[in-house]
Amino acid sequence: MSQPDVAHLGPVELLTPDPERSLHFFSEVLGMETEGSEGSSVFLRGWGDYQRYSLVLTEAPQAGMAWLGLRAWTPEALERRVAAVEAAGLGIGWTEGARGRGPGYRFRDPDGHTFELYYDVERYSAPEHLKPSLKNQPQRNMGRGAAVKRLDHVNVLAADVRANREFCVDQLGYRLYERVELNDGTEAGAWMSVSIAAHELIYTSDAYGAHGRLHHLAFWVDTREECLRAADLFLENEIKIEASPSKHAIAQGFFLYGIEPGGNRIEVTTGGYFVYDPEYPTIVWSEAERRLGQAWRNHTVESFHTYGTPAIEEPLPA
Amino acid sequence: MSQPDVAHLGPVELLTPDPERSLHFFSEVLGMETEGSEGSSVFLRGWGDYQRYSLVLTEAPQAGMAWLGLRAWTPEALERRVAAVEAAGLGIGWTEGARGRGPGYRFRDPDGHTFELYYDVERYSAPEHLKPSLKNQPQRNMGRGAAVKRLDHVNVLAADVRANREFCVDQLGYRLYERVELNDGTEAGAWMSVSIAAHELIYTSDAYGAHGRLHHLAFWVDTREECLRAADLFLENEIKIEASPSKHAIAQGFFLYGIEPGGNRIEVTTGGYFVYDPEYPTIVWSEAERRLGQAWRNHTVESFHTYGTPAIEEPLPA
Amino acid sequence: MSQPDVAHLGPVELLTPDPERSLHFFSEVLGMETEGSEGSSVFLRGWGDYQRYSLVLTEAPQAGMAWLGLRAWTPEALERRVAAVEAAGLGIGWTEGARGRGPGYRFRDPDGHTFELYYDVERYSAPEHLKPSLKNQPQRNMGRGAAVKRLDHVNVLAADVRANREFCVDQLGYRLYERVELNDGTEAGAWMSVSIAAHELIYTSDAYGAHGRLHHLAFWVDTREECLRAADLFLENEIKIEASPSKHAIAQGFFLYGIEPGGNRIEVTTGGYFVYDPEYPTIVWSEAERRLGQAWRNHTVESFHTYGTPAIEEPLPA
Amino acid sequence: MSQPDVAHLGPVELLTPDPERSLHFFSEVLGMETEGSEGSSVFLRGWGDYQRYSLVLTEAPQAGMAWLGLRAWTPEALERRVAAVEAAGLGIGWTEGARGRGPGYRFRDPDGHTFELYYDVERYSAPEHLKPSLKNQPQRNMGRGAAVKRLDHVNVLAADVRANREFCVDQLGYRLYERVELNDGTEAGAWMSVSIAAHELIYTSDAYGAHGRLHHLAFWVDTREECLRAADLFLENEIKIEASPSKHAIAQGFFLYGIEPGGNRIEVTTGGYFVYDPEYPTIVWSEAERRLGQAWRNHTVESFHTYGTPAIEEPLPA
Repeated sequence: MSQPDVAHLGPVELLTPDPERSLHFFSEVLGMETEGSEGSSVFLRGWGDYQRYSLVLTEAPQAGMAWLGLRAWTPEALERRVAAVEAAGLGIGWTEGARGRGPGYRFRDPDGHTFELYYDVERYSAPEHLKPSLKNQPQRNMGRGAAVKRLDHVNVLAADVRANREFCVDQLGYRLYERVELNDGTEAGAWMSVSIAAHELIYTSDAYGAHGRLHHLAFWVDTREECLRAADLFLENEIKIEASPSKHAIAQGFFLYGIEPGGNRIEVTTGGYFVYDPEYPTIVWSEAERRLGQAWRNHTVESFHTYGTPAIEEPLPA
Repeated sequence: MSQPDVAHLGPVELLTPDPERSLHFFSEVLGMETEGSEGSSVFLRGWGDYQRYSLVLTEAPQAGMAWLGLRAWTPEALERRVAAVEAAGLGIGWTEGARGRGPGYRFRDPDGHTFELYYDVERYSAPEHLKPSLKNQPQRNMGRGAAVKRLDHVNVLAADVRANREFCVDQLGYRLYERVELNDGTEAGAWMSVSIAAHELIYTSDAYGAHGRLHHLAFWVDTREECLRAADLFLENEIKIEASPSKHAIAQGFFLYGIEPGGNRIEVTTGGYFVYDPEYPTIVWSEAERRLGQAWRNHTVESFHTYGTPAIEEPLPA
Repeated sequence: MSQPDVAHLGPVELLTPDPERSLHFFSEVLGMETEGSEGSSVFLRGWGDYQRYSLVLTEAPQAGMAWLGLRAWTPEALERRVAAVEAAGLGIGWTEGARGRGPGYRFRDPDGHTFELYYDVERYSAPEHLKPSLKNQPQRNMGRGAAVKRLDHVNVLAADVRANREFCVDQLGYRLYERVELNDGTEAGAWMSVSIAAHELIYTSDAYGAHGRLHHLAFWVDTREECLRAADLFLENEIKIEASPSKHAIAQGFFLYGIEPGGNRIEVTTGGYFVYDPEYPTIVWSEAERRLGQAWRNHTVESFHTYGTPAIEEPLPA
Repeated sequence: MSQPDVAHLGPVELLTPDPERSLHFFSEVLGMETEGSEGSSVFLRGWGDYQRYSLVLTEAPQAGMAWLGLRAWTPEALERRVAAVEAAGLGIGWTEGARGRGPGYRFRDPDGHTFELYYDVERYSAPEHLKPSLKNQPQRNMGRGAAVKRLDHVNVLAADVRANREFCVDQLGYRLYERVELNDGTEAGAWMSVSIAAHELIYTSDAYGAHGRLHHLAFWVDTREECLRAADLFLENEIKIEASPSKHAIAQGFFLYGIEPGGNRIEVTTGGYFVYDPEYPTIVWSEAERRLGQAWRNHTVESFHTYGTPAIEEPLPA
């Protein structure tokens, strides 16, 4: 296949044991809009999300990711991917659809994370007070808090990165742009995409060998200055900053990592590079190269390499 | 005198015939905090203003500037400047003081703008919900709208720029960093400061030869990216953008100019240069040099050179 | 076809009657590296270009674009596109290939611009002094001048935009993201892409009804601040700035336009938005909407709407 | 005294045991211009320095700072400060002057660093190839490397911070904006200025109790993006990055710290805040507050708190 059947990821359902404070974080600190709510879920969107929402925030006993949506390019592409996933023995079955979205097919990756493939979805139509000034923008930028534009990428943890990466490449059609291979041959991380964006779906090793955990959700802003500004706002709002703004070596994304009040790690991101080469050779980082740290040779704190949601053993990063 | 007796300018009282929409602009679009209100006045502040407020927004039949405050370095400096102003025959007299400020001495510049010199003033003490995370910051940055930091400079119009500039230099102790001299010898603009900042008080020619008018108030942000972001927010909030973000040739400030709903021109500004040289030779721009436009050779719209408040003849910039 | 057979555009051969000063512009002001030279051509690259070069700068009596390369996703994709172009009666024939590139198929768009479709190409291998610090980057960023990263997009002029746009969509597989339709039904501009980037290939109306002309080549930088910085460097190097840094309404790209010494218009660009929606509805701008100006309601100078290369009648923008 | 007799600091003479590679760093990586050379010294300047040079780079057996210049506001101010320093018993005596500078008075601070007070100095006059486009700028911005604008501040180490701070305040007229006081009452750092800039001269504790050492010289850039870009260029040029770009809690400056090839720590800096309050109350940070780290709660590496030049015991930061 020259190009993937999957168009993009999202929405994602995120679980929180502290729904009120989590909602405050996403709406006031990240600046997302509440599109609606149903039961114990609130539907949120960035001003650049073209669907009605990119985040479903749901009350639950523990933090973590409930499922991750994947939109297919066409109805036929959807059928092809469902067949591939079923053939791999990881299918769950069709859903009736949900708010603003037609039927979807649920499946699990080898590690146990739940995905939902779908095609039919409603495009967002902004109410009067959210109508944008520029017609090529789905919604008015309200300039509230970090004012994130859209869901950008998801990083999950897996006990066996290689198996999951192979599944995503073989069954879903992801392209593998970068990966980490340790001295003993273990694959410690895989950065994949279905577009020219340097990463959309990332798997990294679960330090506890646990299954189905989330490392972080990343929301896009257009400039590095907005990441720096977001760090100020995290601080002013007593949001734990786990990693202050800097530049990744892998994929060269600019980052800010914080822990939202429910315990999930959230990134505000921008930058990176585009992959235009159709036969792009996967970049392989060795253990020694990773020891050099991030792009500017700074090192992320230990919790960045161990903490995920649901949380295991270790407390929320202090 | 090696260094001026005046410490800085501000607060300023701004008049508006549309107080509700003007207040919405300053609080929601510029992101200032309301410190309090008295009668038909609202007191506003940026998150970096050290005094209780830097802007008094007052309902009035016409837009314009009521008066401009100047704080003296010391009580003795205040006395020296009052004596100088009185000797020039431009004194009005002492006020009782006002919200959070001790007695002040009012006077007029030769063009007729009202100033108030004062020394005693209350330093801002943030209420709980506005307490900053960093103790060297007067107030929490709420990240609302353009989130301007503080009042930066004021540009008034005058029928005779030279006479007013000489008054500011001789009686108030301003340093003259840049000026424009037309082919016929007329002084068309003067950029003055009492600090290393490249401009704090600016006089430019009134195209109508009128008196006492305001060209613009400027509020500071720390980065050029914040000016660009403010332009997006002006647009989303239907604030007239008179001059989109760019860089001035004179003083090299980065700017965004808009017209607030009451009709006054407001700048969001950053950048410029610092003057460390104690014997800095005033930069003189000729008419030919000014015809080249702004720093990047772009030209400001005609209204920028004629419109002021109170407005005369010409309608609000379309 | 769900996704295009064309992977990306580039390289482009640009003609200049002033090769020495043009080369100085591209190497010292834009900061590109000279990869080599052959006859009267110099091969240039940005630090993020994955091929050996993205620009061929060739001495010629007149400025303009000689041809524009298009790389296919696969050899089969190349065959499909060649067949489509031939069927449209616009084929020219196969070339032997050129520096670092295998055989290509030349054709003309309906307006007469020459394109070359190819698949085989050499990936760049940096010499020792240009080895990057990060292995996911093709070349060291030397930080010279504007230090553009790579060729981003091309805007050509056409007498009949609609016919050319239809050709690109139907024969080449481009997706049409935005277009301008005048009151009389004329299509005045079309913004197309084969990726999530909001534009890669643009057609706008030739004000003279001429054929085969170039509006501009655009080179990418990662941040808006780099566009602002590039404007300073254009000024310091006496490069004509035709449009100082600002934000387009269409595609929302951030821009700086200058005229290189040979007379071709060059853009330094960043920003814009990503199109993740597989059934993205083309944005159509009316004549009235275009009259509002760029994103922040500023207006580009007249020459921006008339000048192209080869130049016709009008002199180089003053 | 309402305002200081000292106008600003600089130039500074910096010693290096590796003059060739140090010069490459300052001219190619920081992008300074060589104004001239005499004996084993090279005179360097940023494009915004108004004097002929702000840095004298001199070959020596060990890294470190030879002396730090201070320009007085007026000849009378110079006399007053010389008298104050002599009265404190720390005077050395008059020099004949040096390249482009009249006689100066040398003295030592209590810790043993050498200073030179002067008034007469030549303003820079750019040669043809360095003439700026804007007449309010001393020199063309060549856009080479980090293209630092000017020397901004100096941080020296001292065995007894309080004694040195008191000397600077009492004898030189510095204003004390921020300081650190440990639980045992020790003063661990003092941030002083003679202008509205939040710091110009900094003393911090020497971890070894040594005398006369340098912590770092800081060069100014106008934007945070330029600090981020400088980090990329440090990396590409194999310059040790000791602290990647981030924001200080104290003074809120944005920073990048590297070690130049001779071993001296160099900062690229911007941001911070302005002190307009004439009776600004010194901000005092406690030991507990300092333990929170920098502004975004990140922690600088250990070497940042111990390493200085001349180096003692510890090796150059790895």
